[in-house]
Amino acid sequence: MAQKPSIPKGTRDFTPAEMARRNYIFDTIREVFHLFGFQQIETPAMETLSTLMGKYGEEGDKLLFKILDSGDFLRGVDPKLIESADCPKLAAQLCEKGLRYDLTVPFARFVVMHRNELSFPFKRFQIQPVWRADRPQKGRYREFYQCDADVIGSDSLINEIELLQLIDKVFKRLHINITIKLNNRKILAGIAELIGEPDKIVDITVAIDKIDKIGLDNVKAELKERGISDEAIATITPVITLSGTNEERLAKLAELLATSEIGLKGVEELREVMSGTDALGLNAKLELDVSLARGLNYYTGTIIEVKAQDVEIGSITGGGRYDNLTGVFGLPGVSGVGISFGADRIYDVLNALNLYPEDIAGAAKVMFTNFGAAEAAKSLEAIKCLREAGIAAEIYPDAAKMKKQMGRADTLGIPYVAIIGETELQNGTITLKDMTTGNQEALTIEEVITKLK
Amino acid sequence: MAQKPSIPKGTRDFTPAEMARRNYIFDTIREVFHLFGFQQIETPAMETLSTLMGKYGEEGDKLLFKILDSGDFLRGVDPKLIESADCPKLAAQLCEKGLRYDLTVPFARFVVMHRNELSFPFKRFQIQPVWRADRPQKGRYREFYQCDADVIGSDSLINEIELLQLIDKVFKRLHINITIKLNNRKILAGIAELIGEPDKIVDITVAIDKIDKIGLDNVKAELKERGISDEAIATITPVITLSGTNEERLAKLAELLATSEIGLKGVEELREVMSGTDALGLNAKLELDVSLARGLNYYTGTIIEVKAQDVEIGSITGGGRYDNLTGVFGLPGVSGVGISFGADRIYDVLNALNLYPEDIAGAAKVMFTNFGAAEAAKSLEAIKCLREAGIAAEIYPDAAKMKKQMGRADTLGIPYVAIIGETELQNGTITLKDMTTGNQEALTIEEVITKLK
Repeated sequence: MAQKPSIPKGTRDFTPAEMARRNYIFDTIREVFHLFGFQQIETPAMETLSTLMGKYGEEGDKLLFKILDSGDFLRGVDPKLIESADCPKLAAQLCEKGLRYDLTVPFARFVVMHRNELSFPFKRFQIQPVWRADRPQKGRYREFYQCDADVIGSDSLINEIELLQLIDKVFKRLHINITIKLNNRKILAGIAELIGEPDKIVDITVAIDKIDKIGLDNVKAELKERGISDEAIATITPVITLSGTNEERLAKLAELLATSEIGLKGVEELREVMSGTDALGLNAKLELDVSLARGLNYYTGTIIEVKAQDVEIGSITGGGRYDNLTGVFGLPGVSGVGISFGADRIYDVLNALNLYPEDIAGAAKVMFTNFGAAEAAKSLEAIKCLREAGIAAEIYPDAAKMKKQMGRADTLGIPYVAIIGETELQNGTITLKDMTTGNQEALTIEEVITKLK
Repeated sequence: MAQKPSIPKGTRDFTPAEMARRNYIFDTIREVFHLFGFQQIETPAMETLSTLMGKYGEEGDKLLFKILDSGDFLRGVDPKLIESADCPKLAAQLCEKGLRYDLTVPFARFVVMHRNELSFPFKRFQIQPVWRADRPQKGRYREFYQCDADVIGSDSLINEIELLQLIDKVFKRLHINITIKLNNRKILAGIAELIGEPDKIVDITVAIDKIDKIGLDNVKAELKERGISDEAIATITPVITLSGTNEERLAKLAELLATSEIGLKGVEELREVMSGTDALGLNAKLELDVSLARGLNYYTGTIIEVKAQDVEIGSITGGGRYDNLTGVFGLPGVSGVGISFGADRIYDVLNALNLYPEDIAGAAKVMFTNFGAAEAAKSLEAIKCLREAGIAAEIYPDAAKMKKQMGRADTLGIPYVAIIGETELQNGTITLKDMTTGNQEALTIEEVITKLK
C-alpha cells in the first residue's frame, strides 16, 4: 500500500522559487557580514541536553526537541520513574541529545571549547536552522533559520556602531525601509533605582515593554498590579513617555535619572552610540525607545530592535550587549554584543512589498530544444561552450513535442530558448529565441555567448 | 558550578578556517549545479517516521535518529509494551518524527507532495546535512552533508551524459584528478541470467563488487559459498575480468552476453552514454567496471562512481538511475537519475593534496588600527567608503597595544593593515601596510580603494 506522505507540522518544504527568494536574503546578509569582517562558523544540529537545558527558562526546556538515545534506551532507566509517568524527568533519562534552540548557546559553548584557537575580539557569524517545539501558527515555525553576528571579547561601543551600520547596509540592499530602536539596559536599571525598587527591574521592564501594544494607562495598571506605588508610577511616567528628537530625549533622560549612577551610564553609552552612528550617516531612522526591553534577561547594555516601516509585523532583527555569555560553561568575563536577523519575517516583508529583484529565479539562462540524436549531440557541444563561458544552460532531455519543450522554458522562467534543428545543423547556426519578446535570430555560438553573457 | 561543555560524539564544530574550506567546496558544487540548470530545494531536517522507516533496510531503521514526542509522550503507550522493553517497537510509540537519513527519500516525498507545482523533467539539487546513528570512526560522522543532483521524469540517456559532464566540471574546478567508473545494472542482471540464476543477482553483485578489495580468487570462493556452481563461476569469470579499452570491453561484453536480452540492453545503454561523453570530451578518466554495484539495490540502469586518482580513499561521488523513486509514496512510473557528492571526503582529498586556493580565508581584506576616539571616528568613515566599494574592512574595536592589534591581522590572515594615527589625521591620509611584504605607503582613501579592489 502506498502511503500518502506528509511533513511534520510547523515544518516546510522550499520549492525552487521559494529557495531563490530565500537565497537572495541569505546571500545579502552573508555578503554584508563578510564586508564587515565577520567570519562564519557552524555548530552541529544536535547538542548534548546538558548544554541546552536550563538556558532558556522552564518554558524553553519544554520546547527543546529531544532525541531518543539509540539502541537499548531503557537500560539503566529507573522502573519507578517509568511508572511515575513523570515525562520531563523520564525524557532526561531517555535522551542525552537535543536539537539546538538558538545559535547563541551553541556559540557560547563553541567559544569555550575553542578558546585557544580563536583570536579575540572574535567576530563570528552563523546562519543555521534552529528548532522549537512551539505551537505552530501563522509566521511561527518549528524549524526556522537564524542569522546571527556577534563580537565577543571587546567592551568598545564601536562594536555597537558597527552593528548598526551593518543592519543599515543589509536593509538598504534589500530595499526595506526600517526604524532601528535603541535602548540600554542600564537605563532600565536606572528607572528601577529611581523609584527605589531595583529588585523589580524585570517586573517594570516587562510592563513598560508593552506600552506600544496596550497603551500607557494599561501599563500603569500593570505596574500597580506588580506592586509599584502610585508615587513611583508618577515618577517614571515622564521617563517612559519621552518625546522629541533623540537629542532631546537623551537630555531629558539625563535630567530625570540624575540621581542614578547606572542610569546616567546608560544615557552616556546611548549618546556615544547614537552620535557615532549619526556621524557616519544612516539610511534607517534611529529612535531612542526607553520601553524597549526585548524580553531577554541577558542583555546588560545596548538593546537593539528593528522594525519595517511599511509592513505591520513584529521586529525583523534584534540584539544587544551581554556581559557574561560563556560564564555558564566555565569561561567568565567574556562580554559581547550581537544581532540576529529574522530571515522568515524578512521573507514575509519582501513578499508583502514585492521587493525581489526580477532575475533571481535560479533557472538556466537558456534551454536548448531537442529534435533527436544528431541535433542533441550538436546542442550538447554548444552547451558545453556556454557553460565554459559561465552561462547556465540546459537541454530538454527528450525529443518531446515542441509545445511541451517550450512550455518547460516558460514555466521555469528561462529567458532564452536555443534551437538546433535540421536547418541549423546544416548552416552551423543556432536559432536563439527571446522568450520575453518572441524575437528569433540565427547566430553563431560566439554570438550566442556574447548575447547571453 | 560551571559545566565543562562537549558535543555529541560523531558531530563537529567548524571554525572559520574550516568553514572557508567547506564553503569553497559547496560554492563550487552549487555553481556547477546552476550552470547545468539544476534548481535548489530544501526539505525539513525532521520527517515523519512513516516517511523514513522501511526505506533503508532493517539496519537503516536502527540508524535513524528519532525525536521524542513533545509533552506527555507516554500517553496512549501500551504499558505492556513498556514492560516488554522492546525498544524498537516502543520507539515507534514514543516518537513520530526522525531526522533525515539521506536526501533521496525526502526528495521522493517532496516530488509526490508538490507534483502539481513542478515542471517535469524536474532537475533539482539539494545541499543539506543528514544524520545517521552510525558508530563514529575516522571519516564517518553522525552529521554530514550530502550534495545531490537528480533529474526525474525523463528516461533519456542524455541525462547521464549531462551528469558525467557535471561531475567532470566540479572536479576540474576543484583540481582533483578523478576516474569515473561506469556500469549498468542491466549488465549485472544479464550476468545472472547468463548462468541461469536470475534470482541470485543480489548475491552475485555483492560478491563481485568486492573484487578490488579481496581479489578474484576470494570472489570465486564467495560465489561458491552463495551457491553458484563451478560451471557458472567459470562462465562469468571472463565477464568480471574484462581488460582493454572501454570499446574492447563493450565489444567483449556484447559477445559474452549475446544470449541475454537485458544484458545486451545494458551494453547498448552503456555504449550510448560512453560515446556521447567521449564526443564532448572529458577531463576525467572514464572506465567501464562490471564489478561496480554500489550496494544500493534501487539502481536499475546506469551506475556511477568517482574515485580520486591521487589519494587512497573510498568513492567521493556516486549515483545512478532508478526506475521507481516515488512509487512507495503513491506516484508510480517516475524514473530518474542522480548523483551525490560526498563533501566530507572531498574535503579530505583537498586537504591531503593541499589544493585550496590561497585567498579563501574569509577574513576582511583590511583591518584599521585603533589609536583612540578621534582616529577611530576617521577610520570608520574610511571603512564605510571601502565597504561601499565592496571591500571587506574592519576596525580593531579597542585602542589596545599596537602589537596586539597587529597580531590580530596576522592571526586572521588579513592581508592589509590601515593606520590612521595623529599624522594621518593631520594629513588626511591613510598609511597602508602590506602584511606580506611589510611595505608601507601613505595613500588617500581613493588610492586605498583602487589598490584593494
